[in-house]
Amino acid sequence: MSKPKVFEKPIGVKDYLPEAVERLRRIEGQVLECMQRWGYREIVTPTLEYYDTVGVASATDDKKLFKLLDRWGTTLVMRSDMTSPIARVVSSLLRDEPLPIRLSYHANVFRAIEEEAGRSSEFYQTGVELVGDASAEADAEVIALSIASLKAASVRKFRVAIGHVGFLHGLFEETLPGRTADQEVLKEHLLRRDYVGYRETLARLGLDASVRQELEGILRLRGGQEVCEQAMALSSNATAQAAMRHLCEVWDVLKACDAVSDVIIDLTMTGDFNYYTGVTFEGYASDLGFPVLSGGRYDHLLGQFGRGAPATGFALKTNRILEYLSANQVPEERSRERILLLYTDGNRGEALRHAGELRRQNGVAVITQRVERFDEAVRREDETYRWNGQTYERVITFGTEGGDRDER
Amino acid sequence: MSKPKVFEKPIGVKDYLPEAVERLRRIEGQVLECMQRWGYREIVTPTLEYYDTVGVASATDDKKLFKLLDRWGTTLVMRSDMTSPIARVVSSLLRDEPLPIRLSYHANVFRAIEEEAGRSSEFYQTGVELVGDASAEADAEVIALSIASLKAASVRKFRVAIGHVGFLHGLFEETLPGRTADQEVLKEHLLRRDYVGYRETLARLGLDASVRQELEGILRLRGGQEVCEQAMALSSNATAQAAMRHLCEVWDVLKACDAVSDVIIDLTMTGDFNYYTGVTFEGYASDLGFPVLSGGRYDHLLGQFGRGAPATGFALKTNRILEYLSANQVPEERSRERILLLYTDGNRGEALRHAGELRRQNGVAVITQRVERFDEAVRREDETYRWNGQTYERVITFGTEGGDRDER
Repeated sequence: MSKPKVFEKPIGVKDYLPEAVERLRRIEGQVLECMQRWGYREIVTPTLEYYDTVGVASATDDKKLFKLLDRWGTTLVMRSDMTSPIARVVSSLLRDEPLPIRLSYHANVFRAIEEEAGRSSEFYQTGVELVGDASAEADAEVIALSIASLKAASVRKFRVAIGHVGFLHGLFEETLPGRTADQEVLKEHLLRRDYVGYRETLARLGLDASVRQELEGILRLRGGQEVCEQAMALSSNATAQAAMRHLCEVWDVLKACDAVSDVIIDLTMTGDFNYYTGVTFEGYASDLGFPVLSGGRYDHLLGQFGRGAPATGFALKTNRILEYLSANQVPEERSRERILLLYTDGNRGEALRHAGELRRQNGVAVITQRVERFDEAVRREDETYRWNGQTYERVITFGTEGGDRDER
Repeated sequence: MSKPKVFEKPIGVKDYLPEAVERLRRIEGQVLECMQRWGYREIVTPTLEYYDTVGVASATDDKKLFKLLDRWGTTLVMRSDMTSPIARVVSSLLRDEPLPIRLSYHANVFRAIEEEAGRSSEFYQTGVELVGDASAEADAEVIALSIASLKAASVRKFRVAIGHVGFLHGLFEETLPGRTADQEVLKEHLLRRDYVGYRETLARLGLDASVRQELEGILRLRGGQEVCEQAMALSSNATAQAAMRHLCEVWDVLKACDAVSDVIIDLTMTGDFNYYTGVTFEGYASDLGFPVLSGGRYDHLLGQFGRGAPATGFALKTNRILEYLSANQVPEERSRERILLLYTDGNRGEALRHAGELRRQNGVAVITQRVERFDEAVRREDETYRWNGQTYERVITFGTEGGDRDER
């Protein structure tokens, strides 16, 4: 293997230059502020966790975890999401805090990249966890908050699709009892949104025409609250029916939150993680083929950390939102005024004192520079000035040339 | 080796609960804002870097680096500081940007812990790098900015000690020519501020009385600008003399920035890193035995990344500042008003709409909760209310009991 070149960085990781960092910081700040308004308080956990605790409990494929050994030979992982670390904290440091507990985070997470090129191995997530509330209100609260968060992040056109894993579990148990391998294949098709493959598999399974029709019918179960009624008519399985009653109530709460116009029910949606146990949801921005947020209910995770409790939450995929905003030219807030302060020898004192005064004002950036002489190097360009490859809104000179202080 | 318990996290890492995160965020925000005012723009680099590039170039001891292999067998490191990654970016992504370049950062860095207990292996640094300016103005700018940053972080009582590695290099070359091993032992004593050990080693070296006196004399070289004069009288070595002339000019610039009252010259200070090449400095807060910031000039690093350039910078040790502020009870900004909104069945719509209106106001956190009845569970405590183990400034109820809406 050849040694990396000095200017190279590992595959799948990124540098963010100041323009990108400004956008990233704005998303982070506005989304966390929104989450605070809903009563979610920010938490920070370490980058490294034990493999045997957080690593094993996380929803990430074992082979996608970044692993290393500490000096005592114990296997560590770089966190692959924030849900398992937060479950650990709720079960340890916060074990005496009464439920429900509302927490938010903004964090980088790590996943060893897949075969495909271009996948990131380090990326940012901004999200919440609501631990200790199994109600439809709790499901609706995190969905409504995910919508408010997307708006806070300046994503203008989006739709949040909601589903319930109980419906597919119940329907498959009813129509394909005991045939778990076949069920898995069908779920895998739905997870990858491969509807052609789903239909082909159905055709191969040798099912009664009525059953096949029923299983094909779910592909049309997309829309508003009426979908819950249609689904209840489709399956009489108790699990499926209970799931639909719960989803119907979630819709009612979302209506009270004035959030249904941004929501669509999609019962073919199965969560990305096999640990989802109830309502799941994904947010799609227009023009993007992949979700910008995902979330759902995971009632079995906390028990693995010794404090069994229902829980739900979501994470914004902050990198994707950054790319979306850049591609859609969402206007920036006006950034600070950049002032260049040039001075010649002998005028340093006056110049630096003036820089200090200017820096006490809001919204400025003051760069000071000693020069030999004020030559033509400062170039006017429309409303701004160029000097040494940089743009400034204002140039102030302190020096003997042409008297003393000069401002343009 | 026993498996870690489910609630355990690796040795040397921390969870930050919401109160601590609020403080951490305030330090981060205020310091980065201060750096922006001085023209430094924030950059973000990846957590993982190649060992052969950033790992080898970094000032961190090889055995303190966290290493892992990527799937192609190349050794990666978790970054141990931000100086080397920024040198890589300046030499690659920013290679066409004219110098000087001013960059800031707030980042977590990683170092495998030492023998002593209680050392962190992940901690936060907030800092700047000024690349491409070798002048005394540049040295003074980062020192003055480090002082402004400590003030922005609400550290009230502190002192920044400044030195210059050229003075000790020159003095030792003059007094102990060719005896590099002895020079190293003496520098090691000074680095660890072990003045007893320094004197004992001097006594053992069998030096002329005048030389020994000269080398003991540097322990008294602490104070204002007069120290530069005293030092120049002590050694006629050209390197030492040039270092003192430069430091003297740095002092002049700091005086123009109105920063000398927070500064002390200390010529026994040698930088923590062996790559410092000129002025070095460290900030001490009162009551803390270890520095809360360190920085200095490193003119040989950029060349390792293919774009040779002088550079200087510093990093605040953000964790230590967090501990200092907590221990010194620096008053918090008033945090947001927490409002609890309780509602009974049938009043959900009205309650959730009201929550939405409240959340549009600034400085609030609104938590909604459906309850069976409004019983004595809400307890008044002085100016606040307790419910389910949490404190709220305001409680609003929507329900049938006692009519409809009730606010306290």
